[in-house]
Amino acid sequence: MRAQVAIIGGGPSGLLLSQLLDVHGIDSIVLERKTKDYVLGRIRAGVLEQGLVRLMEQAGVATRLHAEAYRHDGTLISYGNETFRLDFSAHTGSSVMVYGQTEVTRDLYAAREAAGGKIVFNVEDVVIHGADTDAAHVTYTLDDKDHRIDADFIAGCDGFHGVSRQSIPLDVRREYEKLYPFGWLGILSETPPVNHELIYASSKRGFALCSMRNENLSRYYIQCSLSDKPEDWTDAAFWAELKRRIPAEYADQLITGPSIEKSIAPLRSFVTEPMRWGRLFLCGDAAHIVPPTGAKGLNTAASDVHYLIEGLRQFYESNDSQGIDSYSHKALARVWKAERFSWWFSSLLHRYPDQSEFDLKMQQAEIDFLRTNQAAQRAMAENYVGLPY
Amino acid sequence: MRAQVAIIGGGPSGLLLSQLLDVHGIDSIVLERKTKDYVLGRIRAGVLEQGLVRLMEQAGVATRLHAEAYRHDGTLISYGNETFRLDFSAHTGSSVMVYGQTEVTRDLYAAREAAGGKIVFNVEDVVIHGADTDAAHVTYTLDDKDHRIDADFIAGCDGFHGVSRQSIPLDVRREYEKLYPFGWLGILSETPPVNHELIYASSKRGFALCSMRNENLSRYYIQCSLSDKPEDWTDAAFWAELKRRIPAEYADQLITGPSIEKSIAPLRSFVTEPMRWGRLFLCGDAAHIVPPTGAKGLNTAASDVHYLIEGLRQFYESNDSQGIDSYSHKALARVWKAERFSWWFSSLLHRYPDQSEFDLKMQQAEIDFLRTNQAAQRAMAENYVGLPY
Repeated sequence: MRAQVAIIGGGPSGLLLSQLLDVHGIDSIVLERKTKDYVLGRIRAGVLEQGLVRLMEQAGVATRLHAEAYRHDGTLISYGNETFRLDFSAHTGSSVMVYGQTEVTRDLYAAREAAGGKIVFNVEDVVIHGADTDAAHVTYTLDDKDHRIDADFIAGCDGFHGVSRQSIPLDVRREYEKLYPFGWLGILSETPPVNHELIYASSKRGFALCSMRNENLSRYYIQCSLSDKPEDWTDAAFWAELKRRIPAEYADQLITGPSIEKSIAPLRSFVTEPMRWGRLFLCGDAAHIVPPTGAKGLNTAASDVHYLIEGLRQFYESNDSQGIDSYSHKALARVWKAERFSWWFSSLLHRYPDQSEFDLKMQQAEIDFLRTNQAAQRAMAENYVGLPY
Repeated sequence: MRAQVAIIGGGPSGLLLSQLLDVHGIDSIVLERKTKDYVLGRIRAGVLEQGLVRLMEQAGVATRLHAEAYRHDGTLISYGNETFRLDFSAHTGSSVMVYGQTEVTRDLYAAREAAGGKIVFNVEDVVIHGADTDAAHVTYTLDDKDHRIDADFIAGCDGFHGVSRQSIPLDVRREYEKLYPFGWLGILSETPPVNHELIYASSKRGFALCSMRNENLSRYYIQCSLSDKPEDWTDAAFWAELKRRIPAEYADQLITGPSIEKSIAPLRSFVTEPMRWGRLFLCGDAAHIVPPTGAKGLNTAASDVHYLIEGLRQFYESNDSQGIDSYSHKALARVWKAERFSWWFSSLLHRYPDQSEFDLKMQQAEIDFLRTNQAAQRAMAENYVGLPY
């Protein structure tokens, strides 16, 4: 087989890239290791920056998003006994849209299928060959048969554990990582959200987040020990702990119910440089991971897709390789901003095992400054709604 | 002897307090362990916030300051190969004044002497008695004779190593501290400053600061190891190292000369709570220390003096103790803001021995955000020129 772009990974980045390439008349094939149902079963964040919304519009997949997503103009932040609202709209004129990553993926699959896009599921043994030559190709097996795709370019959208990043030689690749000394225990429950906006709560017992998918689907998280297992936490224990960490007025109103999903995720900051090696371009989690505080994961993948689409269009439409040559530099510049914000916002709200009394006072002072200073609020709001591409 | 207020410590906080009390008809006695020449020999920062300038005006000691001080409307910040100017005036409408702490102290001594203010030098064995009773008094010896001052109130302006803070029982006092894993090696030289504004420089080899006192008196600092001694550094070695750390265009212009003072200071963040115990009030370094990055030491002492003067005036003029009762709370609220800023600005610009590659990238990203984001610059400028009292 042949394609202008071979895309490895059928998650939201790969699908969005494929769909946008199609809009611009560039053909691609998407390879996915799992089934479509498996991909749609992954629960991820659901806060979309306007940049991602615009990409969804350009990809022609924003109809349901505009009908069903919730616009959030602000968020509540609580620390100890103080709660304040940070008004994104007032500070930036912009806002974020709450719409589950699963829904984004579902809409993208529907569009790819309607357009007759090529997506191959259940592929195994994916190998990237000759990414640094003019004969780049990808091989894989499907139902025990060997296949090969020759491509002008390869997009690595296969996440942190995928083969794409690993295909870049170690003497070219430089990796930066921070592991946080705690995890997030999250549950999904068919209950009305406790608040119409998110609540980021930092208490003596640790961090908690009240999030939502729709009027009868809530997503809650609590900071937990890395040694905890989801089965250690009954629903009752989760709800009791959540109530202890969020402001009393919301704890009193919280409607609980059985969890329909419960899982623990570690928190990691990770970046690989460069994001391009020859004809291979990394996008999203394949190149970088943020801790979930502030929901920058999918949004940062989207900015990668934006820069890559720009580069590939320039190449195919004007035979100009300037855009693909500057891809890594441009994408990374924005990635590091999102990494900084996610690291800062995580550091601000979690309890750390090795935190001194002075460190706690600095956390409190940082929150107090954010609560009372307009410029600090604006800087935070600009990051939260998404820095410009 | 009797005084309405006994002031322990004849540095700038004690003198400013004494002078302002005098303006409001409240009498005080200042006790100083050293000689006037010794106090005037201490080299300290020289960047004054407008709040301190206003207190100097109210104290009637701002004439020379207004004639001789340099107004700085911004500062240069360099990190690696990037240098940018942060414009305080554009962001806040305000600025800072460069005028040595030694000069502030000199002007205050002159004013106290002209007004016949009581300052006792060379006192020994100062002890505070009954601060939590209605019979507060201070005893000391002078020329081997015992003395006693009975006072309504005692102001502890005797610095980090003074007796005042130590007089508050340990079960009342709570202390917060961070020691930084490096020091500042500073020199004073009779050379023209390399720039008309300060340069805060962060290089791979560590932090450096180009500061100035006047057109022929410069103050330069470099981050050094805590185990270094001033005598380990020849003037030539200092200048060579400074040049490696500041932007090349300034290194080329730097005029060097013999040092007339050379010393190493450790960097510490420290706060004690509360700042009032009965009739004893702590001011300035007696209650809190900041690392010198951002020059908040004297300025934070000044805000303490402001709140204490307010409280004492209210007490003597209206027999209302609300101001002195809220002194600790009000002073600490602003102290913690200055602590946060000084900690943040120090963390941003120094190299730390245990810094990971990821930590360095976060430092770089924080600088890049400050360099390119107007809201972040404004938040920084508001802190640098001084948050409102």
